[in-house]
Amino acid sequence: METKRKLGIIGGMGARAGVTFLQKIIDLSPANADQEFVEIIYHNNPHIPDRTQAILYKGASPHKELLRSVRFLNRSKVDVIVMACMTSYYFIDELSKHTHAYFPDPVALLAGYLKTSLPLQKRVGLLASTGAIRSGIFHRRLEQEDLSVVNLDEDDQENMFMRSLYMPTGLKSGNVSESARSMFLQAVDILQNKQIDVLIGGCSEVSILLPGDSLPVPFVDIMDLLAKDIIDYCYNKD
Amino acid sequence: METKRKLGIIGGMGARAGVTFLQKIIDLSPANADQEFVEIIYHNNPHIPDRTQAILYKGASPHKELLRSVRFLNRSKVDVIVMACMTSYYFIDELSKHTHAYFPDPVALLAGYLKTSLPLQKRVGLLASTGAIRSGIFHRRLEQEDLSVVNLDEDDQENMFMRSLYMPTGLKSGNVSESARSMFLQAVDILQNKQIDVLIGGCSEVSILLPGDSLPVPFVDIMDLLAKDIIDYCYNKD
Repeated sequence: METKRKLGIIGGMGARAGVTFLQKIIDLSPANADQEFVEIIYHNNPHIPDRTQAILYKGASPHKELLRSVRFLNRSKVDVIVMACMTSYYFIDELSKHTHAYFPDPVALLAGYLKTSLPLQKRVGLLASTGAIRSGIFHRRLEQEDLSVVNLDEDDQENMFMRSLYMPTGLKSGNVSESARSMFLQAVDILQNKQIDVLIGGCSEVSILLPGDSLPVPFVDIMDLLAKDIIDYCYNKD
Repeated sequence: METKRKLGIIGGMGARAGVTFLQKIIDLSPANADQEFVEIIYHNNPHIPDRTQAILYKGASPHKELLRSVRFLNRSKVDVIVMACMTSYYFIDELSKHTHAYFPDPVALLAGYLKTSLPLQKRVGLLASTGAIRSGIFHRRLEQEDLSVVNLDEDDQENMFMRSLYMPTGLKSGNVSESARSMFLQAVDILQNKQIDVLIGGCSEVSILLPGDSLPVPFVDIMDLLAKDIIDYCYNKD
């Protein structure tokens, strides 16, 4: 009898970050054979406009294409929907109205994890897109927990972190250059030096280069929390 | 105007090998931004029974579930269908009757590549599942090109190569052990020492551990040929 739940993933934001997230799902699965994994429908939707452009600079809204993916996953009868992009959770309230699937909120998972597992870490360094930072999706929730959120200065945020993602051979491209990698790692370094107690990977692209085990401060990848949560749900462990 | 074609991938055979294949698609994409990748529907279908068991040992046939994935991808209006498992191509003639999508045959791609790019390499070492080897899907086509196909001895094939895939912490599991890795690499080593001119990765699991750049003989990963072929097709380069 099949008791595992069916998982739907909206990817393509970016394409590489989505595959990195799918890899996390496989690595966390309590499965020894092909038949023990969960059924997954993964949609790499390249028609979704850029989230930061939409939130901050009046770019085209991603809503219509995100909704197309949600509806496709509804028709595919998935039990869980997850988006492999943190900034896209700016749109979660509107999207979750259109599905009966479980649609976890990663920022709530992060807040819960920090409270329970790292209660003394009060200054959290947040690596996230400018859209996610300026829209307040992290700040509102984390400040409720009396956490102080530290970001890169505006210049480093744009010209180091965001540039390492969006430059032609950046983390969002098919072919990532050494200079994008080194620019990204420099941005991580700068944020670590701001007297933070914990570093948060708050953008799906961060997972591509930061497994985190060699960092001087504790590192929490929000995509790991999301992957663990949906694996537990799919295997009926919640 | 959208001119790129839509790609459907049947994965889950195994789950890790499927993600490795999807990663190849991303790495080969001539794309600098999220919106420049192709639309992909990836189906990790864990309900497909084991291919080698079906072909050789009267196990349940994978046909019904492979066909369910093909029909799902048809409804999703993909232009190309690819299976991230070589042994499953034993069923390609029957499956391709049920779709209008382009459904490339990787063994034909391999035969063409060897003829054109490695015309002097006549003794080809083939790493593939026992089902793929004994059903003759590679041998029939490669022997037409006057190539001599070399495999592991039966004992090494079962107790080294296949075991490294199918053992509880093998390449098909969620959590690959060091002993599975080392058993797999020993199998590669044994085959390399059989005076072969070229080594063929003829199983999607081979891609997980063999990037191939450090091997003493030329290495051809059939999943790379398949990925290149469909990327060219999706970007209208054929």
